[in-house]
Amino acid sequence: MSVTAPQGFEAAGVAAGLKSTGKPDVALVVNRGPRKVGAAVFTSNRAKANPIIWSQEVVKDGVVEAVVLNSGGANCFTGPFGFQTSHLTAERAAELLGVSAGDVVVCSTGLIGTGDEVFRGRVLAGVEAGVAQLSSDGGQAAAEAIMTTDTVAKTVVVSRDGWTIGGMAKGAGMLAPGLATMLVVLTTDADLEASEAHAVLRRATGATFDRLDSDGCMSTNDQVTLLANGASGIRPDLDAFAAALTEISDELARKLQDDAEGASHAISIEVVHAADERDAVEVGRSVARNNLFKAAIFGNDPNWGRVLAAIGTTRAAFDPYDVDVWMNGVRVCTAGRPDRPREEVDLTPRATHVLIDLKVGEAAATIRTNDLTHDYVHENSAYAS
Amino acid sequence: MSVTAPQGFEAAGVAAGLKSTGKPDVALVVNRGPRKVGAAVFTSNRAKANPIIWSQEVVKDGVVEAVVLNSGGANCFTGPFGFQTSHLTAERAAELLGVSAGDVVVCSTGLIGTGDEVFRGRVLAGVEAGVAQLSSDGGQAAAEAIMTTDTVAKTVVVSRDGWTIGGMAKGAGMLAPGLATMLVVLTTDADLEASEAHAVLRRATGATFDRLDSDGCMSTNDQVTLLANGASGIRPDLDAFAAALTEISDELARKLQDDAEGASHAISIEVVHAADERDAVEVGRSVARNNLFKAAIFGNDPNWGRVLAAIGTTRAAFDPYDVDVWMNGVRVCTAGRPDRPREEVDLTPRATHVLIDLKVGEAAATIRTNDLTHDYVHENSAYAS
Repeated sequence: MSVTAPQGFEAAGVAAGLKSTGKPDVALVVNRGPRKVGAAVFTSNRAKANPIIWSQEVVKDGVVEAVVLNSGGANCFTGPFGFQTSHLTAERAAELLGVSAGDVVVCSTGLIGTGDEVFRGRVLAGVEAGVAQLSSDGGQAAAEAIMTTDTVAKTVVVSRDGWTIGGMAKGAGMLAPGLATMLVVLTTDADLEASEAHAVLRRATGATFDRLDSDGCMSTNDQVTLLANGASGIRPDLDAFAAALTEISDELARKLQDDAEGASHAISIEVVHAADERDAVEVGRSVARNNLFKAAIFGNDPNWGRVLAAIGTTRAAFDPYDVDVWMNGVRVCTAGRPDRPREEVDLTPRATHVLIDLKVGEAAATIRTNDLTHDYVHENSAYAS
Repeated sequence: MSVTAPQGFEAAGVAAGLKSTGKPDVALVVNRGPRKVGAAVFTSNRAKANPIIWSQEVVKDGVVEAVVLNSGGANCFTGPFGFQTSHLTAERAAELLGVSAGDVVVCSTGLIGTGDEVFRGRVLAGVEAGVAQLSSDGGQAAAEAIMTTDTVAKTVVVSRDGWTIGGMAKGAGMLAPGLATMLVVLTTDADLEASEAHAVLRRATGATFDRLDSDGCMSTNDQVTLLANGASGIRPDLDAFAAALTEISDELARKLQDDAEGASHAISIEVVHAADERDAVEVGRSVARNNLFKAAIFGNDPNWGRVLAAIGTTRAAFDPYDVDVWMNGVRVCTAGRPDRPREEVDLTPRATHVLIDLKVGEAAATIRTNDLTHDYVHENSAYAS
């Protein structure tokens, strides 16, 4: 059901010829009201794709009627022609739906530099076909149409106190061959003001998608959109709603991590007793982005020296010679020296847990990442494309 | 000749049993005077190995009599015992040479966490054997004894205006399996004050070794040491000397890049027309550290979108939509859109040149890096150790 699980949403996924495989590649998610509240967060990369530049303007007034998404082309660095394509995409959808183009968000994923006339024609045809196929159980089809190298469609639903949140996602960092991007659409029939939608979305993404760092590479096209229509008639308790939205976002982030291209380990790096949350995130991210650490995990090697060498590059508050490092439950380093023998650590399970105790304060954070594998290199080199 | 090319230096390299292969693993470089000027630059990693902590104190007074180096163990995160080992190493060398332990620099490279009693015993025995074998043509033997996964010993010599500089180096970023570190010793018979030696060393390393970023991973043990004895009797023109020291450092950096473990491309990322040098370095480094870009080069794929996605994450001054990207002489992107067809780019040569024109100012910088290959993953996962 995914994005069509809440009341008052329709979706579709169609094959428009953007993918050479002939698989579905254009998706629509439409909010049938009564309210048309929308909020979104975007990549912080200064190199932004055309659909990002378009969509940032659309969400400013807090009103979103529909989301059009395509796989098979990022429409990034395609010049003014590419921006016009994003604009025309919104216009075509708006025209067919009887709404304003200024309330239609556009998302794209695929190879940077792809966005010529052929691309444009197929996207517009896909919008027409998609609108014709909109249905209140189209959530699964939409989730499938946004897949690139994803091996499974990623959807999630949660219901609480009379309201429901649904979601779909694709990608994982930029872990795909020449393709890109995490695209997420979240829908709810809870009754939210635009400012509330924006606030809860920031809160949820900050603790989940923002802490998924599969390969350290930031996409030009990342976008997470929340649509809220109030169809349930219920004004939710905001803390409860934010908690549910965070939970659902966390589940989608975990699905993205689990399906990361080429990965053989899903690594959770938990940093505890940090001075503040920012320090905890910085320390976790430094390990998540260390190629030597990631290659060691691929080889089932509990190489804690690489963990310490990575965190030593941060400016977080801690004493490098008074840090404990645990791997899958075994303390391998304490107080600046080796602790339990490395042989005690079993790194064969896919789920890998690294615990870093900074012994400074009370803050904590977990960063999700993947290992660096032969398959990652293969998928991301031209041999695969 | 390497470090013994200038007058008044002796060196040795001996096998002390630290390497399981039985190859040489302890090196000494001794300054026979008349002057005993020394300067060094160290890793900026907060997680510093014991020999770094020791050597930082040694060089403070600008006097260095000798350098003791070992491969086969990093002596990092080995607790107070490990620090005592560095101290004892300097003491043993000082005693045998008839100098002060406070004037003996120690460098180590190898696995983090390695530095037990067996290690200590072998290093000390190696120092004794090394002192016994010191000779004025021991430079090559010393260069061989500091090798880890290096396939060739890296040495260089330049002579100008009556003075000579010699050098040896090992490593490349942290591109070695479980091993680490760039270690460099530079010697000269030019007559320099300590403050001059420090200044020219900073200047040379800042433009060369600091811009070698093979895999983005900073070692706990990096050290570049310059010894100057004035044996030539010549006070060099400082600008000419700095230029020669930079030239020799650049040559060593290139040798490190060319010998990087597992690499199939030696990539020079040249950033031009930056607002200032710091921007140029930041932009170049962001590309050098982007795994997607590095994997694409491995696959001979001129994926300029990944270059733009990488530089978009920086804070440097430029317009992402008005940047030119050239690969091996072909302009593949201009003004935010594709330019020449990717088929025109030949990425089969090992030497790869990426030119990024920011079109903002007059500053420039080149970062040296390597591609991300199957061999890199293999060498740095446990399968190789």
